[in-house]
Amino acid sequence: MAKPLQLSDDRLLPAEAGTRAIARRLYALVRDLPIISPHGHTDPSWFSENQAFPNATDLLLAPDHYIYRMLYSQGLALNDLGIASRNGPSGADPRAAWRLFAENFHLFRGTPSWIWLNHVFSHVFGLKIALDATTSDQYFDHINDMLAQPAFRPRSLFERFNIEVLATTEGPHDDLRHHRALKHSGWSGRVITTYRPDPVIDCEHEDFNAALDQFAALTNCDVRQWTGYLEAHRIRRKAFRDMGATATDHGHPTAATADLGRIDAERLFATVVSGKATPAEAELFRAQMLTEMAVMSVEDGMVMQIHPGAIRNHNRLLFEKFGRDKGADIPMPTNYVSALRPLLDRFGNEPRLSVILFTLDETAYARELAPLAGHYPSLRLGPAWWFHDSPEGMMRFREQVTETAGFYNTVGFNDDTRAFFSIPARHDVSRRIDCAFLARLVAEHRLDEDDAAEVALDLAYRLVKKAYKFD
Amino acid sequence: MAKPLQLSDDRLLPAEAGTRAIARRLYALVRDLPIISPHGHTDPSWFSENQAFPNATDLLLAPDHYIYRMLYSQGLALNDLGIASRNGPSGADPRAAWRLFAENFHLFRGTPSWIWLNHVFSHVFGLKIALDATTSDQYFDHINDMLAQPAFRPRSLFERFNIEVLATTEGPHDDLRHHRALKHSGWSGRVITTYRPDPVIDCEHEDFNAALDQFAALTNCDVRQWTGYLEAHRIRRKAFRDMGATATDHGHPTAATADLGRIDAERLFATVVSGKATPAEAELFRAQMLTEMAVMSVEDGMVMQIHPGAIRNHNRLLFEKFGRDKGADIPMPTNYVSALRPLLDRFGNEPRLSVILFTLDETAYARELAPLAGHYPSLRLGPAWWFHDSPEGMMRFREQVTETAGFYNTVGFNDDTRAFFSIPARHDVSRRIDCAFLARLVAEHRLDEDDAAEVALDLAYRLVKKAYKFD
Amino acid sequence: MAKPLQLSDDRLLPAEAGTRAIARRLYALVRDLPIISPHGHTDPSWFSENQAFPNATDLLLAPDHYIYRMLYSQGLALNDLGIASRNGPSGADPRAAWRLFAENFHLFRGTPSWIWLNHVFSHVFGLKIALDATTSDQYFDHINDMLAQPAFRPRSLFERFNIEVLATTEGPHDDLRHHRALKHSGWSGRVITTYRPDPVIDCEHEDFNAALDQFAALTNCDVRQWTGYLEAHRIRRKAFRDMGATATDHGHPTAATADLGRIDAERLFATVVSGKATPAEAELFRAQMLTEMAVMSVEDGMVMQIHPGAIRNHNRLLFEKFGRDKGADIPMPTNYVSALRPLLDRFGNEPRLSVILFTLDETAYARELAPLAGHYPSLRLGPAWWFHDSPEGMMRFREQVTETAGFYNTVGFNDDTRAFFSIPARHDVSRRIDCAFLARLVAEHRLDEDDAAEVALDLAYRLVKKAYKFD
Repeated sequence: MAKPLQLSDDRLLPAEAGTRAIARRLYALVRDLPIISPHGHTDPSWFSENQAFPNATDLLLAPDHYIYRMLYSQGLALNDLGIASRNGPSGADPRAAWRLFAENFHLFRGTPSWIWLNHVFSHVFGLKIALDATTSDQYFDHINDMLAQPAFRPRSLFERFNIEVLATTEGPHDDLRHHRALKHSGWSGRVITTYRPDPVIDCEHEDFNAALDQFAALTNCDVRQWTGYLEAHRIRRKAFRDMGATATDHGHPTAATADLGRIDAERLFATVVSGKATPAEAELFRAQMLTEMAVMSVEDGMVMQIHPGAIRNHNRLLFEKFGRDKGADIPMPTNYVSALRPLLDRFGNEPRLSVILFTLDETAYARELAPLAGHYPSLRLGPAWWFHDSPEGMMRFREQVTETAGFYNTVGFNDDTRAFFSIPARHDVSRRIDCAFLARLVAEHRLDEDDAAEVALDLAYRLVKKAYKFD
Repeated sequence: MAKPLQLSDDRLLPAEAGTRAIARRLYALVRDLPIISPHGHTDPSWFSENQAFPNATDLLLAPDHYIYRMLYSQGLALNDLGIASRNGPSGADPRAAWRLFAENFHLFRGTPSWIWLNHVFSHVFGLKIALDATTSDQYFDHINDMLAQPAFRPRSLFERFNIEVLATTEGPHDDLRHHRALKHSGWSGRVITTYRPDPVIDCEHEDFNAALDQFAALTNCDVRQWTGYLEAHRIRRKAFRDMGATATDHGHPTAATADLGRIDAERLFATVVSGKATPAEAELFRAQMLTEMAVMSVEDGMVMQIHPGAIRNHNRLLFEKFGRDKGADIPMPTNYVSALRPLLDRFGNEPRLSVILFTLDETAYARELAPLAGHYPSLRLGPAWWFHDSPEGMMRFREQVTETAGFYNTVGFNDDTRAFFSIPARHDVSRRIDCAFLARLVAEHRLDEDDAAEVALDLAYRLVKKAYKFD
Repeated sequence: MAKPLQLSDDRLLPAEAGTRAIARRLYALVRDLPIISPHGHTDPSWFSENQAFPNATDLLLAPDHYIYRMLYSQGLALNDLGIASRNGPSGADPRAAWRLFAENFHLFRGTPSWIWLNHVFSHVFGLKIALDATTSDQYFDHINDMLAQPAFRPRSLFERFNIEVLATTEGPHDDLRHHRALKHSGWSGRVITTYRPDPVIDCEHEDFNAALDQFAALTNCDVRQWTGYLEAHRIRRKAFRDMGATATDHGHPTAATADLGRIDAERLFATVVSGKATPAEAELFRAQMLTEMAVMSVEDGMVMQIHPGAIRNHNRLLFEKFGRDKGADIPMPTNYVSALRPLLDRFGNEPRLSVILFTLDETAYARELAPLAGHYPSLRLGPAWWFHDSPEGMMRFREQVTETAGFYNTVGFNDDTRAFFSIPARHDVSRRIDCAFLARLVAEHRLDEDDAAEVALDLAYRLVKKAYKFD
C-alpha cells in the first residue's frame, strides 16, 4: 500500500512546545501574505504565451539542476533523466525518466528538494500518496492530467500562488519581446525583468562576442568602443526599466571591484574586445564594470545585486557533452572586505545607491558581510542563497548575521528559481524558518512577541518591497 | 500608551523546561559573583576625578560605535547623532540626537546592543517603559536626572556594579597620571592599567612619530635606536606594572609573528623609524615585536593578549571626515597556525609565558585556535570578541572550542568596552550563555550537574582571576 | 565518598521530550548493530598474538595523543605521563602517571575524551565510581586486574564489541606479517589492512629513503625508476588486497592533485628520489600520486580515502625531543574546489572510482564538499574527522552537509582510532548523534519517522558496508 503524503501544518517549526506555539502565532501573521519574488529565473514567455506545461518530467525533472545533480551523483545518467545534451534532446521516454526519479526519490531525504517537491505534489497537484517506485506512474499520469487543465496554465497559477511581483532575469542582448508582449496583453499580473549584463561583461564566456553583436544591434551603439559600450548599457537599462525592472544582477566569480581612471578603463576595454584578455584582465574588467554599473545606478536608481562565489561548470566532461548549468557549479572561498573596497571607497556612503550582497561562502556572514552591511549605508544583505536556500542554511544566516547587521539591513527572501511551481513552497519555507528563529528569540526573552511580530511582517513582505523599490 | 520594559529573569536561558531548570540553578550560583573585567577601554579619569556624566546622549550614544554604526548603516548622519568630527563637536542638540536614536531603536532588535541597552535602562536607571519615539524625552530627562545624583558617579557605580578589578588600556606614551592619581586617592576600587604598545609599534599609524617622541620623553631613552627602544619598553612595562598592570595587549591587523636575528631586527627597526618602511616591513616589524614582547613577558610575567583580524577604518570618507574608530572596522580572514609559528617555535613550551588569543574570524575556533590551545602550554583562548560578544557568538565559541580545548584553556569573559554602564549587562549575558551551554551538556547527559556547577564558577570567576594573575 | 559513575541511556539524545522519544526509537534500531570500522589505526599484532594488555597507563594514557595533548596544554610534562621520547621509555611509574591523569581528569569536561573514557570505564571495565584523585589507585588496580583476564584479550574483546570488520592501516613497506599470521590463525575475526602509501610518497618525511628501500626489497622492483616505482605500488596493492584491503588512504597536507604528462611525471620523480626536491616539488609529487593511485583504483577497485589538512608536528621542540605524532598536529585552511580539479577532470565521472573525502576545515562542508559530492559520481564524504569526531562536530557535519549532498553521498562512521577499547564508545556516539539529528528532522516534520528509520540503519551499518565494498 502506498505511503500517505501529508504535510504537517507545523513543519519546520521548532519542536519545543512553548517555542512552537509562538512560532505558530507569528507564522499565522505571514503565511497568507502576497509573494514578492524580486530575483528569479522563470521564463517570461510562460506568462506572455500562457501555454500548458508539457508533462511531469519536462516540467519538474529535466530543467531542475537541484534534482538531477543529486541523481547524477549517485550514478544515474543525465540522458536517461531526459536532460538534453549539446547533441540535442535526450530521447528518453518521459515516463521512464520519471520512474528513475521516483525510484531514487529517497536520495533527497533531508534536502530542501524533498520539502519543495512534496509541497508541490501535495499543495499544487493535490496528491495524497508519497512518491516512490510503486506510485511513479500514478504521479506521472495525475500530474499530466492536471497540467492539461486551464487552472494549471501559468497565469492561473500566478494568481493562485498570490504573487504580487515576479522578476525574471534577462541579458542586455535580449530584446525583451516576451515582456513587451506581456505589457500589452491586458493581463494584470506584474512580471518584470532584471538587468543582468554578465553576457556583455564576461569576456571569458564563449558567447561574449555574439552577445556584443546583439547588444550593438539593439542599441545602435559602437559597443566595441568604451564610450559607445557604456552608452549602450544606459540605453538598455532604460529599456529594462520600461519593462518594470528596478534592479540589476551581477553573477561574477568573485566580489572584486575596481575603480580605474578613464584612460586605464578604456585601455582595458580595448584589450577585452580584442579577445586577448588574460584571465587577470578579464577579472579586472568585471571588477571595473561593477563600479561602472554603480555609477549608472546612482543616476537611474536601479538596485544592484551582486551574486559572487561559484566556479561555473566545474565538471569539464559534462560541460563538453551537456553544456552550461548542469548542476556542476561549485562554490569557493569568497572575500568581500578587500574585494569591495574600491567600490565602497567611491560609493559606500552614497544614499542613492543600494547594493545587495549575496554569498555562497557562509564564513563571510558574521566575519565580513554583517559588519559591512551594519555600517555602510549603501549595503544590504541578500538572503541565504542557492545551496544555502534551505532550512539549516536560512537559520545559519539569521544566527550569524542578525547580531551585527540587525534585521533591517536584510531584504527578505529571494527564491532565485526557474522552477515556477516551487515558488510558493520556497517562500513558505523562508517564512517558517524566519518565524522559527524569531520564536526562539521570544522564548529566550531576547525580543518581545509584539516586536517579533513586526519583524515577521518585515521579513516576509515589507523589507523586500522597500529594498527592491516596489512600493 | 508606552510599552512596558520588563526583563525576564530567564532571559537567554534555553526554552526547553528541563534544560532551563538546570540553567537557572547554575546561573543562581554565578549571578552575584564579583565582576572581573581584565580587558576594557573605560577612561581612568572617570574614576580618578569621579565627576558626574553629562547627559544621556554624551554618555550612551555619542561614544558607542556599536550603536551609531547601525544607525549610520540605515542612513542617519553622524553629525545629527552628536558624533564629533575632525572639525570639532557635532553641534547637534543632545535631546534631538537622543530622539533620533529613540525613533530608530527598533533597528537593534535581535542585536546584543538591544539586550545591553535594555539592561542599562532597566537595571541601572530603573526605567519601566520601553524606548521609542514616544518615550524619548522621558528617557532623556530621567537619565539626566539620575546622572546628576551622587549614586551615579563613577566610583559609586563601580561599587554598585560589584567590580573586583577593572583594567583600562593605555599606550606606552601615556603618562598614567590618572592611574597615579587613583592610586593616591584613598579609594579602594581596583582600577588597573594594561600595556598596549601598538602606538609605538605600528609605524603605519599617523601618530607613530609623535608617540615615539612621548615614549622617549617618558623614559629618557634613545628610542630611535633598537637597544634604546627595547629598553624604553622595559621601563614603561615596569611603570605599568606599578599601576597594577598584569597584562599587555596587541591589536595587530594579523597574528603574524617573527623571530629575526638581532642584526636583522636592528636593521628593520632603522627602516621603521626612518619613515620609509613598506607595508610588508611595517607588518614584519609588528610581527617581530610580538616576539620581543614575549621575551619581556618571560622576564616580567605579564600576560600577553593578541587581538588580531580587523581592517581598521575601512570607510575612507568617514575616516577623512570623522577620524578613527567610527564603527568602520571590518574583520578579515585570519590565519593563526602559520602566523604564530615563529613565536611558538621559541616560546610555545615556555611555562613562564601566557598568551591569550582572540579572533574575529570564527572559522579559526575549531580549526586552529582550539587545537593550538589544546596543545601548547603557553596558549589560552580569549572569549568571543567584539562582533561575536553576543549570545549567538558566545554559544558558537563554546560549541566550537570546548571539545578540543576544553574549558580550562579558556579565560572567562572580557567585556572590552568603553561603555562603563553596560559592564554588568555584558558580564550577565556571558554568565547566562555559559550556563545555557552547560545546561545543555547536563540535559544531554554529557556532564553531571555538579561538574557543570564547578565549571560555571570557573567560567564566571576563577579562570579569569588565574589567567590574568589577579590572585 | 567517591562520586558514582552512571551513564544515562539517553546520553547525547536531545533534551526536548518529544524529540527524545523519537531519538530513542531510532537509536533502539541501531544500538546493537555490528560495528564496521573501515578506517583506524589499531595494531594488527594485538589480534595475531592475542597477548594481554600491560596496564592502565600503557593501554589508555601513554598511547593516546587526544589525552596527553590536553594534559600537556595545562603544563604537565610528557615524561611524567609515561610517554616515551626519542631517548627511550619515560621511566615514569605507571601508577604515578595514572594518578596525574586522574587528578586532572576534570580538564576533559565537555570533550569527547570525557565521553569515550567514561564509556570505557563503565561499559568495558564495569567501574561504578568516577575517576578523580581519590579513586585513582582503585581504578589503576581494577583495570590491571581486568586486563589480566582472558576476557580482556584482544580477540575476546573484538567479539564482545560485536565488530564485523576492523581495518588497520599499513605502509607499502610493511611486510604485513601480522595480517598473514592472522589469516592463518584460524580465528574468525575479520581484521583487514588498508594501503597507506604516504611513507613512499612523501619525500619530506625523514624516513622516506628507508621506506623506499624496504619497498624495493618487498617487490623486487627498481623503485627509484618511475616505471618500477609504479609497478611496485601495483604489487603491494595486490598483496594488501590479499590481506583483505578494500581501500587506500592518503594523509597529505593538502588536497592538491595533479595530472602531469608521463615525461613530466618521470622527471619530477627523478628529482624526488634525488633528495633535492623543493617543498613545491614534494607537494606536486604528492598531488600527482593521488592521480596515479586513482588510475590504479580504477583498475583494481580499491576505494581511495583522502585525509588532508593537518600541519604535522607543529611543535618543533616536542618533535625534536619526542618525535612524531605527539598531539601537535594542527589543522589549516583546506581548499578542495581547485585542488581536486585535476583528478576530477580525469576521473570525476568514472563509475569504477570511489573517492572518500575528509576534512579538518569545517568551512569546506557546506561550501565545497557537499556541492562536490552532491554532483560527482566518484565522490563521497567521509564522516566528521579527528578534532571533529565529537558530538558537536558530528552534528555540524550533518547540519552542513545533508541539505546539499543528502545522506547517501556519505559513508557512515570511521573511528580512526588506535584506542581499541574506545571503539564501541565512538561508534555509539556516532549512532546517538545521527539519531538525534534525524529525530529533529522528524520532530520538525521534515522527514517521516519511517523514512528516518531507514536512514538510521543506513548511517549506522549499510552505507559503510557499501562504500568500503564489504558486502
